[in-house]
Amino acid sequence: RNGAVEMGHGAGGRAMAQLIDELFQRHLDNPLLRQHNDQALFTPPPGRLVISTDGHVITPLFFPGGDIGSLAVHGTINDVAMAGARPLYLAAGFVLEEGFPLADLDRLVASMAAASRSAGVPIVTGDTKVVERGKGDGCFITTTGLGVVPDGVAISGDQARPGDAVLVSGSLGDHGVAILSQREGLGFATEIRSDSAALHDLVAAMVAAVPGIHCLRDPTRGGLATTLNELARQSGVGMRLREAAIPIQPAVAAACELLGLDPLYVANEGKLVAICAADDADILLAAMRAHPLGAQAARIGEVVADPHRFVQMETRFGGQRIVDWLAGEPLPRIC
Amino acid sequence: RNGAVEMGHGAGGRAMAQLIDELFQRHLDNPLLRQHNDQALFTPPPGRLVISTDGHVITPLFFPGGDIGSLAVHGTINDVAMAGARPLYLAAGFVLEEGFPLADLDRLVASMAAASRSAGVPIVTGDTKVVERGKGDGCFITTTGLGVVPDGVAISGDQARPGDAVLVSGSLGDHGVAILSQREGLGFATEIRSDSAALHDLVAAMVAAVPGIHCLRDPTRGGLATTLNELARQSGVGMRLREAAIPIQPAVAAACELLGLDPLYVANEGKLVAICAADDADILLAAMRAHPLGAQAARIGEVVADPHRFVQMETRFGGQRIVDWLAGEPLPRIC
Ligand SMILES: Nc1ncnc2c1ncn2[C@@H]1O[C@H](COP(=O)(O)OP(=O)(O)OP(=O)(O)O)[C@@H](O)[C@H]1O
Ligand SMILES: Nc1ncnc2c1ncn2[C@@H]1O[C@H](COP(=O)(O)OP(=O)(O)OP(=O)(O)O)[C@@H](O)[C@H]1O
Ligand SMILES: [Mg+2]
Ligand SMILES: [Mg+2]
Ligand SMILES: [Mg+2]
Ligand SMILES: [Mg+2]
Ligand SMILES: [Mg+2]
Ligand SMILES: [Mg+2]
Repeated sequence: RNGAVEMGHGAGGRAMAQLIDELFQRHLDNPLLRQHNDQALFTPPPGRLVISTDGHVITPLFFPGGDIGSLAVHGTINDVAMAGARPLYLAAGFVLEEGFPLADLDRLVASMAAASRSAGVPIVTGDTKVVERGKGDGCFITTTGLGVVPDGVAISGDQARPGDAVLVSGSLGDHGVAILSQREGLGFATEIRSDSAALHDLVAAMVAAVPGIHCLRDPTRGGLATTLNELARQSGVGMRLREAAIPIQPAVAAACELLGLDPLYVANEGKLVAICAADDADILLAAMRAHPLGAQAARIGEVVADPHRFVQMETRFGGQRIVDWLAGEPLPRIC
Repeated sequence: RNGAVEMGHGAGGRAMAQLIDELFQRHLDNPLLRQHNDQALFTPPPGRLVISTDGHVITPLFFPGGDIGSLAVHGTINDVAMAGARPLYLAAGFVLEEGFPLADLDRLVASMAAASRSAGVPIVTGDTKVVERGKGDGCFITTTGLGVVPDGVAISGDQARPGDAVLVSGSLGDHGVAILSQREGLGFATEIRSDSAALHDLVAAMVAAVPGIHCLRDPTRGGLATTLNELARQSGVGMRLREAAIPIQPAVAAACELLGLDPLYVANEGKLVAICAADDADILLAAMRAHPLGAQAARIGEVVADPHRFVQMETRFGGQRIVDWLAGEPLPRIC
């Protein structure tokens, strides 16, 4: 496939219809998308639903472990799954920059289709806009997801209670460090890959083991530190972490040293934080470790009563420090 | 409100949390958005649902009759409504350009909130990304809508049958001409305003009058001509229009002359095309005319059997011409 995106691909005429048919719908094909209406029609299973949306503006568009297409699928599936929900459908809106190579578009939509298919969550409706050269950055993708929450599940960021256990599903910082290494052209001996993955299947196993999980959240922008601060604020509690218990890959720790980053503030795209009653923690941890995406799961701390809602950490050397909201310079455009 | 969007507003830390709290959620406030989780949880009414998504990249962001905020609300409500559905909820993803004035953002989010409130369709979840200066164009908004389809309604673009009547809800070309006039700095004696409006209330009245409507579609990008060609293709039929019956405001017709545009190819944002059995046409037309957004509704033609799926038009002078897919240069970024 040669050529590049032109303004006409967004103008509503034949060129757009052709791009949609021959590129987007060819890759993403499924019965609901094939309805070819302005909307997709379906009958949801009975029960409570959740909806979530995320724009994806990552640069570079292709990176070790994924690309913007797979990321846009995983990111929204994960936000839906963090309600304990089973994701049902995705919608995808593209903003393309004039001049963007159609070969790249084809590659990232193919990747999106593969991610959607392997997750079992079809993209059922879409939109394609084109902006002039210099008014965009190749490709932005906004995905919106819909999911159904199993009966009896009531997971929410305001449910953390003093005494609860804090768990993470695996090592932290992989995604952000993979992006930054690629961007800075750092050639590490071990290639660091994004952890980008769809977590709904892990979540289903967790909810089956412990239906009463209190909180689930994916530590994306702002990393683990920001996510725990969000949960502490929302629940009106503090947290106490043990640094030594937080899983970080040695290669990621080394890269963070080099880049001057704290891995606790670096984005992840295939990890989750879970908070549950202390009595449920062992069962939940075992369920997580039994799943490929939770093999490195760890119990990293506990929820405490704290009117200041501080997240504190016992350091590797026995000291205490406060893990505040994002410290230092932010990492731009990692998701 | 002074200042401008900074990269930190998209980085997941305190600056982002503050922008979301103090700007977005202040304007858009509603109980579901206030859940403050990664997703919004709700129990839909029983029945079939529809989902639709649209990116909005219009330039200029503010125009006579609306702005990108109200447009992003109306546009997605309308695509949901074109299934005969009652829109329930919206999700909104923002891609902001570094340097975008916060005062403009505040103004357009306020407009979005007003449009959402007046339509009775809350924005229940959102996302905020920031791209570097020169990698975006101020503000892009992708909205996704969810709606519920009343029992017995089965509206779809493949339902047009030879003999059916073709109706439009009002005058054509207002939106696109309003945008172009503003962009070209054309000062017409009569200001031409965008017709941007939420059509779900009109649709509810139409569905109540004629539950068996065959097709509904909003003639947005590509205008009436493109929409009718889409419907003809999808249903495997032809159409025959009467040019004299197609409502076009004199000021819009004059501006089109001047700009070298055919109003049939110009985008609308508050109009719809309806196709129904000929026997239902008078009842449907009366229901449309009884609604403020359908006051100028007109019956403009009929569906015919045609293996070529041509949309033909009897011109004002008694001739025949084919109304093809988009002809000539496309109009960039009008929605
Ligand atoms: N990138 C895409 N991937 C998959 N399907 C797409 C994509 N873009 C558009 N579609 C599908 O193509 C059809 C036409 O989309 P289009 O955006 O033209 O409709 P619309 O939203 O009614 O028009 P407008 O965007 O001008 O308001 C819809 O069925 C839509 O789901
Ligand atoms: N522009 C906005 N308008 C309204 N609410 C917003 C907006 N942006 C974000 N929110 C809300 O703020 C909360 C946090 O959103 P955020 O995007 O940080 O979560 P996330 O999607 O889990 O993280 P990430 O986008 O990094 O994956 C959510 O409840 C979301 O609905
Ligand atoms: Mg997210
Ligand atoms: Mg999240
Ligand atoms: Mg669209
Ligand atoms: Mg639309
Ligand atoms: Mg439409
Ligand atoms: Mg988000």
